[in-house]
Amino acid sequence: GEPGRETPHLDQMAREGLLVPSMYASAPLCSPARAALLTGRLPVRNGFYSDNDPGRNAYTPQEIVGGIADWELLLPELLKQKNYTSAIIGKWHLGHQDQYLPLKHGFDYFFGSTNCHFGPYDDVKKPNIPVFRNEKMVGRYYEEFSIADNESNFTRLLTEEAVAFIKDQEGKEDPFFLYWTPDSTHAKTYSSAAYRGTSGRGSYGSAVQELDAGAGAILQQLRDSGLENDTLVVFTSDNGAALVSKFDGGSNGPLLCGKQTTFEGGMRVPGIVWWPGTIEPNTVTQQVISQMDFLPTFLQLAGIELPQDRLFDGIALGQSLLNTDLHIARPVFLYRGDILMAVRRGPYKMHLWTWNAPQSELDDGIDFCPGQRQENITTSFQFDHRDSPLLYDIVADPAERYLISENSEEYKDIVPKLQQIVGDHESDMVKGSPELNWCDTAVMHWAPPGCDELGKCLDVPESNPYRCVWDH
Amino acid sequence: GEPGRETPHLDQMAREGLLVPSMYASAPLCSPARAALLTGRLPVRNGFYSDNDPGRNAYTPQEIVGGIADWELLLPELLKQKNYTSAIIGKWHLGHQDQYLPLKHGFDYFFGSTNCHFGPYDDVKKPNIPVFRNEKMVGRYYEEFSIADNESNFTRLLTEEAVAFIKDQEGKEDPFFLYWTPDSTHAKTYSSAAYRGTSGRGSYGSAVQELDAGAGAILQQLRDSGLENDTLVVFTSDNGAALVSKFDGGSNGPLLCGKQTTFEGGMRVPGIVWWPGTIEPNTVTQQVISQMDFLPTFLQLAGIELPQDRLFDGIALGQSLLNTDLHIARPVFLYRGDILMAVRRGPYKMHLWTWNAPQSELDDGIDFCPGQRQENITTSFQFDHRDSPLLYDIVADPAERYLISENSEEYKDIVPKLQQIVGDHESDMVKGSPELNWCDTAVMHWAPPGCDELGKCLDVPESNPYRCVWDH
Repeated sequence: GEPGRETPHLDQMAREGLLVPSMYASAPLCSPARAALLTGRLPVRNGFYSDNDPGRNAYTPQEIVGGIADWELLLPELLKQKNYTSAIIGKWHLGHQDQYLPLKHGFDYFFGSTNCHFGPYDDVKKPNIPVFRNEKMVGRYYEEFSIADNESNFTRLLTEEAVAFIKDQEGKEDPFFLYWTPDSTHAKTYSSAAYRGTSGRGSYGSAVQELDAGAGAILQQLRDSGLENDTLVVFTSDNGAALVSKFDGGSNGPLLCGKQTTFEGGMRVPGIVWWPGTIEPNTVTQQVISQMDFLPTFLQLAGIELPQDRLFDGIALGQSLLNTDLHIARPVFLYRGDILMAVRRGPYKMHLWTWNAPQSELDDGIDFCPGQRQENITTSFQFDHRDSPLLYDIVADPAERYLISENSEEYKDIVPKLQQIVGDHESDMVKGSPELNWCDTAVMHWAPPGCDELGKCLDVPESNPYRCVWDH
Repeated sequence: GEPGRETPHLDQMAREGLLVPSMYASAPLCSPARAALLTGRLPVRNGFYSDNDPGRNAYTPQEIVGGIADWELLLPELLKQKNYTSAIIGKWHLGHQDQYLPLKHGFDYFFGSTNCHFGPYDDVKKPNIPVFRNEKMVGRYYEEFSIADNESNFTRLLTEEAVAFIKDQEGKEDPFFLYWTPDSTHAKTYSSAAYRGTSGRGSYGSAVQELDAGAGAILQQLRDSGLENDTLVVFTSDNGAALVSKFDGGSNGPLLCGKQTTFEGGMRVPGIVWWPGTIEPNTVTQQVISQMDFLPTFLQLAGIELPQDRLFDGIALGQSLLNTDLHIARPVFLYRGDILMAVRRGPYKMHLWTWNAPQSELDDGIDFCPGQRQENITTSFQFDHRDSPLLYDIVADPAERYLISENSEEYKDIVPKLQQIVGDHESDMVKGSPELNWCDTAVMHWAPPGCDELGKCLDVPESNPYRCVWDH
């Protein structure tokens, strides 16, 4: 978004690799998008949703009772068939109770946090979020891992950890999977002292610059370790920019609205694929890609069969990635919670429902579409367009500004085809048990594993489960 | 705007040169912006405006009686002091009657058109626009220079002409100034057969791709001629994307509204400066630059004194261009016609007036801010904010989405300073005689110089001057 060329390393990565302008997040919010990325399945299937109210975006705050279900197979679990060593370095966000932690779900190594770095908290109403190394906490944000005045070394630490992990893989026979997931560009944004005040975009810009430098350091370590021709690297984001965070939230460029919505600003995300020697430098693909495609695609490239006991929403796109002229017609279904809001396929996007934020939130200044009001579209309620879906040519009109008229031949030709695709999708849908319905202050990380060794255990309050409230 | 990397040559130019994210056109419409670029003076000073109605954007259609005044000194006239040979290859647009043609105003060579390529016309109500070589027409658009089904060789011709002109300069002692101004990205957009269907953005994308290839060919000829270290090249545009033209109009990325408005989408334009060996590759400047700065800056770099007998709105920025850490505080005044709508200075932009299009035009689907409705800002009438100007931090908020509150300390500190700057500007303002008030079908190019040799003279109708109508 910042027109000041503040991401030299990612720009370089794009020049050396493949740019994917049509990359879609699996959900317009963090946790469900990440759960879908690692399972290859929509949140509504893998349980990362709530049905307390229809169409709400839910995630995993400290109070969440649920997490990623045992039954779900995560990418690192599947990669074990070819002896991959897997590490997550950064934010996990798929449940923080013991049974949900990364090492229970296929990861061999974990350094980072279970939840977002929100805070600081007071240890009475809420404890600060712990940072884990493997199965034990090593401290907490704002305590052992300081974040003060938007300054923190944490992205630098995550970069050093990632670089060290790659260095460790040198000369090993087994392959590896590294899932690097910094959370510094999330309000409240933070960066190291070296990046303070270096950007015209304030604290957000600094966080992006340090993230960019981290990506650059990881690619450089791959080169230094002689692994660059044997490693596929993907850069992306779990949702569009959080316009509600104003200057702390980035920009979606021309795209409509932002995070939390199923407009392009919420779900169209950066996509860079890098694999020297295999992927041609300076290429672009118009292939529509969902982040749920990573799992089937990575398995395909690793020579691992996709499990046959469940439906996957992602499809294997190895052929298309390696041949940018080949466009596989794959629909992408865009949900808020358990409601199918829209579908993208080929050059078209069809909205069945549209929604910004409820009026109560708009009154509080919570607006996911600031300055982008469109009649009957960016409304304060879920607007039902199912009888006359909205149709856009999203290639010619990525900003969703020019509705294709219901009276046009194009509309009459395309909408029934997309409705057929939606019908097929819905007839196959078996919803997972909603993991994000229940909250309880007792499940917060008062006393995570390892707290005793650090003398950092807090008293756990009495359990009192309640329905989580998701406003949007 | 197209996220598909469709401008490889301009991207390369930016990598080899200096990116200017804060480049401003001199007006939100073509003719006045071009008149200001070549004079270094605001349209309201050089006469390229109308006062038939306040705040209307006027330009030079076929019916226009006026043109660039004799008294104005154009860049090529001033460069004559150092024996520059000057060529304009492309669209002129500063008046088409004999006295206004390029060779009357300092250019030594002209190939291109006097007006836009709108048409085809019927030779009864309107003739097609002629193409000139120097002082004589060599044919007309849609006739000798075909444009059919968005296909035309014209951009290729302009590129060949520019390349040939540079080649001609090889080994000459005198320096040269080339003003290359294709008009193919203007609706109705056109490109050569080789570029048909090559872009995801349709005909507009194809036109941009061919424009990009043209820029690449020009830079390559400079290299081939061994002139690359001795030539300063600037790439820019005369206004923001014409959102009213929908898919034929491009995208302004995150910027608010488009061409015809003084929001960023109307006036913030591409800026790339290229001068190998002098300007560092891969650099960015946060210097705020107006296109009116080119004239004083070019003169400064050529060692020519700025005339002292008139006020210039541009200032010499050579020092800042060559030292990107040096930011010269220069205000940019944004006008619609004769009304000062806004001022940009440093990180701030202050709106005194805002306006989209009149209701009558909105009713006709003419909307310069599609999908971007903001209360009391993107209105159908000129909204007077002079008592409480709107203030934006345009560095942090280039999309003009987040008003700085009137109650904030920042507002109370900055607005009086900007009002002082506006007061100084207005106290020095001597408006030029408005050249764009009068229209007359008799002045259309029925019988341009050279028509007799081609047997293409048309009957000139009776003169019947009338006030031009400018709706927006």
